[in-house]
Amino acid sequence: MCAKKVVGVLGATGSVGQRFILLLTDHPDFELKVLGASPRSAGKKYVDAVNWKQTELLPEFAKNIVVTECKAEAFKECAVVFSGLDADYAGSIEKEFKEAGLAVVSNAKNYRREVDVPLIVPIVNPEHLEIVGQKLDAAQKAGTGRPGFIVCISNCSTAGLVAPLKPLVDSFGPIELLTATTLQAISGAGFSPGVSGIDILDNIVPYIGGEEDKMEWETRKILGALSDDNSTVVNLPDEQMRVSAQCNRVPVSDGHTECISFKFKNQPPPSLEQLKKSMNEYVCAAAKLGCYSAPKQTIHVLEQSDRPQPRLDRNRDNGYGVSVGRVREDPVLDFKMVVLSHNTVIGAAGAGILIAEILLAKNFI
Amino acid sequence: MCAKKVVGVLGATGSVGQRFILLLTDHPDFELKVLGASPRSAGKKYVDAVNWKQTELLPEFAKNIVVTECKAEAFKECAVVFSGLDADYAGSIEKEFKEAGLAVVSNAKNYRREVDVPLIVPIVNPEHLEIVGQKLDAAQKAGTGRPGFIVCISNCSTAGLVAPLKPLVDSFGPIELLTATTLQAISGAGFSPGVSGIDILDNIVPYIGGEEDKMEWETRKILGALSDDNSTVVNLPDEQMRVSAQCNRVPVSDGHTECISFKFKNQPPPSLEQLKKSMNEYVCAAAKLGCYSAPKQTIHVLEQSDRPQPRLDRNRDNGYGVSVGRVREDPVLDFKMVVLSHNTVIGAAGAGILIAEILLAKNFI
Amino acid sequence: MCAKKVVGVLGATGSVGQRFILLLTDHPDFELKVLGASPRSAGKKYVDAVNWKQTELLPEFAKNIVVTECKAEAFKECAVVFSGLDADYAGSIEKEFKEAGLAVVSNAKNYRREVDVPLIVPIVNPEHLEIVGQKLDAAQKAGTGRPGFIVCISNCSTAGLVAPLKPLVDSFGPIELLTATTLQAISGAGFSPGVSGIDILDNIVPYIGGEEDKMEWETRKILGALSDDNSTVVNLPDEQMRVSAQCNRVPVSDGHTECISFKFKNQPPPSLEQLKKSMNEYVCAAAKLGCYSAPKQTIHVLEQSDRPQPRLDRNRDNGYGVSVGRVREDPVLDFKMVVLSHNTVIGAAGAGILIAEILLAKNFI
Amino acid sequence: MCAKKVVGVLGATGSVGQRFILLLTDHPDFELKVLGASPRSAGKKYVDAVNWKQTELLPEFAKNIVVTECKAEAFKECAVVFSGLDADYAGSIEKEFKEAGLAVVSNAKNYRREVDVPLIVPIVNPEHLEIVGQKLDAAQKAGTGRPGFIVCISNCSTAGLVAPLKPLVDSFGPIELLTATTLQAISGAGFSPGVSGIDILDNIVPYIGGEEDKMEWETRKILGALSDDNSTVVNLPDEQMRVSAQCNRVPVSDGHTECISFKFKNQPPPSLEQLKKSMNEYVCAAAKLGCYSAPKQTIHVLEQSDRPQPRLDRNRDNGYGVSVGRVREDPVLDFKMVVLSHNTVIGAAGAGILIAEILLAKNFI
Repeated sequence: MCAKKVVGVLGATGSVGQRFILLLTDHPDFELKVLGASPRSAGKKYVDAVNWKQTELLPEFAKNIVVTECKAEAFKECAVVFSGLDADYAGSIEKEFKEAGLAVVSNAKNYRREVDVPLIVPIVNPEHLEIVGQKLDAAQKAGTGRPGFIVCISNCSTAGLVAPLKPLVDSFGPIELLTATTLQAISGAGFSPGVSGIDILDNIVPYIGGEEDKMEWETRKILGALSDDNSTVVNLPDEQMRVSAQCNRVPVSDGHTECISFKFKNQPPPSLEQLKKSMNEYVCAAAKLGCYSAPKQTIHVLEQSDRPQPRLDRNRDNGYGVSVGRVREDPVLDFKMVVLSHNTVIGAAGAGILIAEILLAKNFI
Repeated sequence: MCAKKVVGVLGATGSVGQRFILLLTDHPDFELKVLGASPRSAGKKYVDAVNWKQTELLPEFAKNIVVTECKAEAFKECAVVFSGLDADYAGSIEKEFKEAGLAVVSNAKNYRREVDVPLIVPIVNPEHLEIVGQKLDAAQKAGTGRPGFIVCISNCSTAGLVAPLKPLVDSFGPIELLTATTLQAISGAGFSPGVSGIDILDNIVPYIGGEEDKMEWETRKILGALSDDNSTVVNLPDEQMRVSAQCNRVPVSDGHTECISFKFKNQPPPSLEQLKKSMNEYVCAAAKLGCYSAPKQTIHVLEQSDRPQPRLDRNRDNGYGVSVGRVREDPVLDFKMVVLSHNTVIGAAGAGILIAEILLAKNFI
Repeated sequence: MCAKKVVGVLGATGSVGQRFILLLTDHPDFELKVLGASPRSAGKKYVDAVNWKQTELLPEFAKNIVVTECKAEAFKECAVVFSGLDADYAGSIEKEFKEAGLAVVSNAKNYRREVDVPLIVPIVNPEHLEIVGQKLDAAQKAGTGRPGFIVCISNCSTAGLVAPLKPLVDSFGPIELLTATTLQAISGAGFSPGVSGIDILDNIVPYIGGEEDKMEWETRKILGALSDDNSTVVNLPDEQMRVSAQCNRVPVSDGHTECISFKFKNQPPPSLEQLKKSMNEYVCAAAKLGCYSAPKQTIHVLEQSDRPQPRLDRNRDNGYGVSVGRVREDPVLDFKMVVLSHNTVIGAAGAGILIAEILLAKNFI
Repeated sequence: MCAKKVVGVLGATGSVGQRFILLLTDHPDFELKVLGASPRSAGKKYVDAVNWKQTELLPEFAKNIVVTECKAEAFKECAVVFSGLDADYAGSIEKEFKEAGLAVVSNAKNYRREVDVPLIVPIVNPEHLEIVGQKLDAAQKAGTGRPGFIVCISNCSTAGLVAPLKPLVDSFGPIELLTATTLQAISGAGFSPGVSGIDILDNIVPYIGGEEDKMEWETRKILGALSDDNSTVVNLPDEQMRVSAQCNRVPVSDGHTECISFKFKNQPPPSLEQLKKSMNEYVCAAAKLGCYSAPKQTIHVLEQSDRPQPRLDRNRDNGYGVSVGRVREDPVLDFKMVVLSHNTVIGAAGAGILIAEILLAKNFI
């Protein structure tokens, strides 16, 4: 067995950073050695720098790591750097890391819309990582050093949406129209300050800043195709797929529920049974590659009338599996159904880990 | 000032019955004298029969009323009987009451789909009560006695949906396509057993039995027209209005939030400003009639990006006003917006009271 | 009828400030004219400065008041200034106001422990306001100008605790030992940031910084006596009353529940019936003075086995009444019972208003 | 390795029964073969009989087990029968099973107060199982057949309370006075109907029928001693330990929080550090016996000021570990602290499994 790859985490004291640390504990491929955080935390032991707020205990191995500032120099031995940085800091820091030749897998939104930055839901579009392969090949041919790169994790609500769409468009062609109303968990908003208790107890907040635009835009990138030379992603044009999102924050700790309706371009549409079969039989590429965190069952199609439910179903396949229920015909578009995904796993830190596993399986790191 | 009309309540110990009693306390038009409940409760003082679960105290006047069985004879002096009966009992009891010449305003679903039974959201379609007027006229002409009748209150999620649609179809013509995803409060499910705590805490239940069908069907009746002779309601045909509902139960005590999208038949559609103006300026007929419970402002169009919210906005106009927010263009249909209504007021007992006030204003009782 | 007294509010944009404004709307004795907030808000109309988060709409009268900085000069026409300032600012600002001859009723903790500052739960110890009377008399005799003063509102969890204790100690003598475990609502923590949603959903936080010490200390001041010359309050000595508090934050929006046990110094203790009668018959001095906000029933002793409950009972007497239930013998001390009080009314802004009404009734303002 | 012992579950479709099934999945010592439920379920496959409501999926092995009625004959090959029956049925059924020579580990309350029935918190008083050993010895000597017996699991709130008390009384002698206020999760109330959502959302219910009496009584049995001949348990007399409980239901899914105060008989009491050390170093007998489910750390003494919290700490040691925090001196008794335990694990089904593991380790089954 090969030695584990050394990895690091940026924004290690934040909510996404804490999740990266948990998911990297006892990971078979990666060894977490470098933790970066703000200058306020740098120089302290991690256990003293962090306000740990996870349901699992702070792993022993992480306690005594001395937190460093987010400078590329400190991460130079890392095969991958996972970034849980806030958008306010991610822009410049991730750029510095990339320019220093490092591989960054980022949960921040800053570079998601760059055409040469893969925006990845690892159970959906790992083929977009070929952009990285192309960069590596080009550098090798040019005889220049190994280039750094950034891969972006999608927005959490987008991840849940596109997972079941992928096998559907593969099997039945383009989805022309799509509406999605989300009921999103509060863990997605982080800790500081996150969603205030008085704002969400016995309440719904029918607005999440920027979220609807992200879902509408990112969906068309993730389901888009690579350019011929594998150097960029070409978003689905608006006329091939129009998406409308309505995003709500609900009093749920983890797990985004999405009520979606959609219409295929090709008519007549498939049957309900074909639809369900397509999702049920979908095996994501990460599973085929044997990645450690890949879900055994990518999409769970549930037949009980009142499922999926976040409290009961969010942890399928350790949060890497997506649950779909109530698949039925829609009087307005073709079909409607309910999708549930774990926002901090497949929608954030967990996706980052699986992306890195795929990068490793493809020898891109 | 005229004497108050004597009224009664069926199903008086249940959750809807308790709300009827509260709303009838110190009512200027009605005096509640008769409380009907199951044989188990009959013969007891109301205070001893009820498990009172309201935020207001059990009104003094009701405490010592001796509960009667749900037999028409006991209610014969009532100008109106409000029914909060469960569907299991409402069918036969309400029929008996009607046949005994009584006026019944019912929250039960049993007779909602009868063509000659008005299905009323009092801030939307009180004109459908002309069916009652026509019955009374016909009886008078025929010299037969005053006929009994049933008026049905709509389903709670339907009430919130149709309220803002009414001024829109009045102003801009038919709505051809409509999708609605609801986030419904648990108070709508009653007490026994209602929604279990363990099912709804930190959770969403993406299913409410029969609810989606009710919303899709009732909307087309409420927005339908009277037949020429005012004897029946003609539902909007499916091709004039296709409705698709997705209903969810959420951990909110009171107040249904609905995320809706819709497309007008007439194109191009109105502007956003026209849309908002139409809703803001809508004055319901009950307000024009001067009914006691009618909302001062029927529809509140909110401009803050994160409103309406159930905890903050459900009590507008004592729960008789409906709040609309986030009115914006929709990439798939024409517009999308968020609607909030108080499910136990305009969606249940409160609607019944306002219907009775309208019946009184029209001299139908 | 006399003209209303002009009043002002400090910290007007915060959660306590917003509650002061609501409670002063259409108040028969007071007219709110001056709103003070941070320099960031000063100069703006209140409607533009505030992030209004109340279940009632922002009152019309307040919308166009131009917010001023918290300088005494701007409040000089105010008979009373209500302070909802954070402790970080209250110390210096309230001192300046007092020195400028203004009457300040403050929700901040800064001056609560000064021996010549009355710490008031208005339904419990308004007689401590005689300290103010003594100051006014002294100034009059000395021929100096009307002196300013500060009156402090108690901590919210203390208010609920001492309310039922007052008639008990009046009737049955000192309470020697008292334990209280609180289940406190999140509204008490304010908005910015307040309690985070992810910290309190499906959770209990068994700690509120400083709260236990406040309860243990303030209880002994509020139940203490005036010095002979009415110039200071003498706390109950520790040996006359030992209090132990355990404070928890729970997922409840409004209403503090407290499970208390206590032992009287005089043995044998009263009977259960005497205990309940004493609380039920207690009429607070504010009610006797005819104050507008005084509760009709100060303490509601409930006989149902599962009451009081915050959602059902917190609004008794508009939140000025305290509910007590489950009064029973205690195997360890003498008695145990459950107390419920509305933390933002009798435990914060509401108490301030009632204190001012008492000051007015006593001609101290 | 020995063959696994065959076991059965009574009340298999209920909430406790479902938990037994999950905990017996892939258990190294036990093989679950027989599922008993009501006549309504008997004859059906388990998957068709149950309304499965767990966060883990229904285990494959259980799906096709045909449910049987709760008759001893059907369970005769079982080394242990776990009972999750409701109290209404447990009395007669468990008696029948015992008389048929079966070993029953029951979560029902029916036999807890029998002097010859061990009432066991497996991390606290497994030595009380010697009553079973004594019965077996006696039968062997008498040459009669292997006798059946019942072992009772304690009430969930009692389990959390006694866990930290055990090392304290072992180290420092009797606890003379103890007060406990509980904040109990709703999962303890089961499904049908359990706690209603509308009763617990944004609310506290300060009453759980019978619970306080159970805590006060059971604590004195569990901490009591065996009689000289090991045939019965002798409760601690009231004068050696007086317990006062106040029980509340709170909006938490799993995990009971208890705020306790206590006073030792021996004065002066130990120091805070001695107290914490005693709890931290406690190793339960089940761990020494090497039982599969025994917690690695029986009691986790937490030093952070705001812990334990149910959402963060309830799953320590898979729910078999108990967390204690805020250990501090108490102005009224000697000490106060907060205890958190997982009510469905150490307080119900999980305790039953660990009891059976201990019975096996002691060769009592």
